[in-house]
Amino acid sequence: MTSIALADYNIQIGSVWPVLQEILATKQYSRIAIIVDENTRKHCLPVLQSALALDNPLVLEIKAGEKNKNIETCSQIWSALMEADFDRRALVLNLGGGVIGDMGGFCASTFKRGIDFIQIPTTLLSQVDASIGGKLGIDFAEIKNSVGLFCNPQAVLIEPAFLNSLTARELRSGFAEIIKHSLIADVEQWQRQLSYDNLSGLDWLTVIPDSLRIKQRIVAEDPFERGLRKALNFGHTIGHAVESEALQGESPLLHGEAIAIGMVCEAFLSHRLTGLKANDLEQIKTAILRWYGHEPQRPERFEHLIRLMRNDKKNEGDGINFTLLSAPGTALTNQIAAEDLIVESLNYYNV
Amino acid sequence: MTSIALADYNIQIGSVWPVLQEILATKQYSRIAIIVDENTRKHCLPVLQSALALDNPLVLEIKAGEKNKNIETCSQIWSALMEADFDRRALVLNLGGGVIGDMGGFCASTFKRGIDFIQIPTTLLSQVDASIGGKLGIDFAEIKNSVGLFCNPQAVLIEPAFLNSLTARELRSGFAEIIKHSLIADVEQWQRQLSYDNLSGLDWLTVIPDSLRIKQRIVAEDPFERGLRKALNFGHTIGHAVESEALQGESPLLHGEAIAIGMVCEAFLSHRLTGLKANDLEQIKTAILRWYGHEPQRPERFEHLIRLMRNDKKNEGDGINFTLLSAPGTALTNQIAAEDLIVESLNYYNV
Repeated sequence: MTSIALADYNIQIGSVWPVLQEILATKQYSRIAIIVDENTRKHCLPVLQSALALDNPLVLEIKAGEKNKNIETCSQIWSALMEADFDRRALVLNLGGGVIGDMGGFCASTFKRGIDFIQIPTTLLSQVDASIGGKLGIDFAEIKNSVGLFCNPQAVLIEPAFLNSLTARELRSGFAEIIKHSLIADVEQWQRQLSYDNLSGLDWLTVIPDSLRIKQRIVAEDPFERGLRKALNFGHTIGHAVESEALQGESPLLHGEAIAIGMVCEAFLSHRLTGLKANDLEQIKTAILRWYGHEPQRPERFEHLIRLMRNDKKNEGDGINFTLLSAPGTALTNQIAAEDLIVESLNYYNV
Repeated sequence: MTSIALADYNIQIGSVWPVLQEILATKQYSRIAIIVDENTRKHCLPVLQSALALDNPLVLEIKAGEKNKNIETCSQIWSALMEADFDRRALVLNLGGGVIGDMGGFCASTFKRGIDFIQIPTTLLSQVDASIGGKLGIDFAEIKNSVGLFCNPQAVLIEPAFLNSLTARELRSGFAEIIKHSLIADVEQWQRQLSYDNLSGLDWLTVIPDSLRIKQRIVAEDPFERGLRKALNFGHTIGHAVESEALQGESPLLHGEAIAIGMVCEAFLSHRLTGLKANDLEQIKTAILRWYGHEPQRPERFEHLIRLMRNDKKNEGDGINFTLLSAPGTALTNQIAAEDLIVESLNYYNV
């Protein structure tokens, strides 16, 4: 069991239920809602409920999937809290992946101008990424996370046992953010990861805290994404566009699968623009293709991908903004790449 | 001209345009949106645009009125900002009354997780109340301000000349919050107000800053409404219910008109529960009836009014929460009144 202390809340990894019990005993909330989807209702809610005897919790089930992370689902959540007469001393437990954490946190932090919430991320992706940093929100007008705010939870409780209910694809999706953290800030973690043949059987009680500490350090220095925190966007400018594009097609990619593609492309941009060495670039591409396989992007959609990148909220002014690497473990924020070079990077991934 | 400095922004009363000009010159926003309704587009926007030569502002007109302060209008605002490619360095100017300030501020503080906004309140009500304190939000499921958050603007700019475009009813509506501020915290201001025969021709450049300083002091000590700030709820538990009820009927009351009724009723509760003297109670009722006239409440709707009070977000647990007076100028928060006594207070107002 490990605990990471942030400015105003703790992240607990392992042994989470006694910690939750203690928070509830201290805070004496008037009511508790648990937001789940059909998957976490089946696999995770029974674990929580057998560990803690909650008094008449309101279980709110929403439909799984990024496409339901929208203002209509928020309205359902707010309505349900209102109908159950929740007051400002109530608590929301977000039991699920990034969709539930982002949207449940947004609903809680805007219900009656903000009630407490606790994140209990159940996917690897949300355990190492979405659950910390206080970014909450929903997708709006087809733009990811375009409506939201920054607000910290009371706590983040990470139960690695929940990872056993994930598929191999979900696990590798989450692993993309672990790769990202090491590539932007810790070359030693990256070297260790290069030795992984596959991702099952990793020691999550070590891997997760190691990765979280990187994000925690960056977020602590820049809570509102004014500067340094943009380092966390490595792989995400192209990755988000690839993800949005795939959502429209027949075989959608999971978030991390799209980010993995984005990291290969943006490593290519790093080689061309910010001094990443050729052999480091090759090593990144080889490792990512080994873990994720190859999903070539259709050249006739490149123009559309670039339009999506232009609409990204990370941009300011006219250029398309990137975080690039000067070496594994070292990131440079606020880099601009020309459209031609972005196309070249997609071709580099494709061949 | 007066300037009131808060922890992280200023309220400017009078001479507002040079101040706005300076903020814009310093901040170099990428784009500017101005949110207006049909009234402020006609009466206030030309004043702003002739004072400042803004470069291609996006003027967003929403329909006036509390009934449009909802999530659908927010979606229109977010969509318009998205379509105009607003980035995180953009600014929203909220040019209007409480509806525009609350909702425009909510939209700005959640657009791409928060962009800057400046409040330019155009009604007396919003100039002395809604514009300060950082409370933003919308009505949801028929409950006022039930979805929202706390977030401070870059500045609040109060132009008393805008009051000239208001009707006498709108002016007296705003005056209710001025009365409230003095009743909860400044007996000398209350004594001065007792001498007002009517509300036209007051020296707003004195009256507004005097009243704002009371609110500012309270908000500064309790920004998130954990304790002291509840003093500002005097008149509002019953007043909000009366306002909601009247919205359903044929002759809706303006916010301050409903709060004036609420203050008479809650002064009655104060007499019975917290030691407000009989002659102070009479003085409050007499003055309020002189300024606002008499709007008897239908006894057959009392039960419904009490149900509305129960749903108020100020409640915690089962009781109905009030802020009451022990004397003019002194408030006591977290007072509970029984339903019988609330009915009695409504009857006291009625006769």
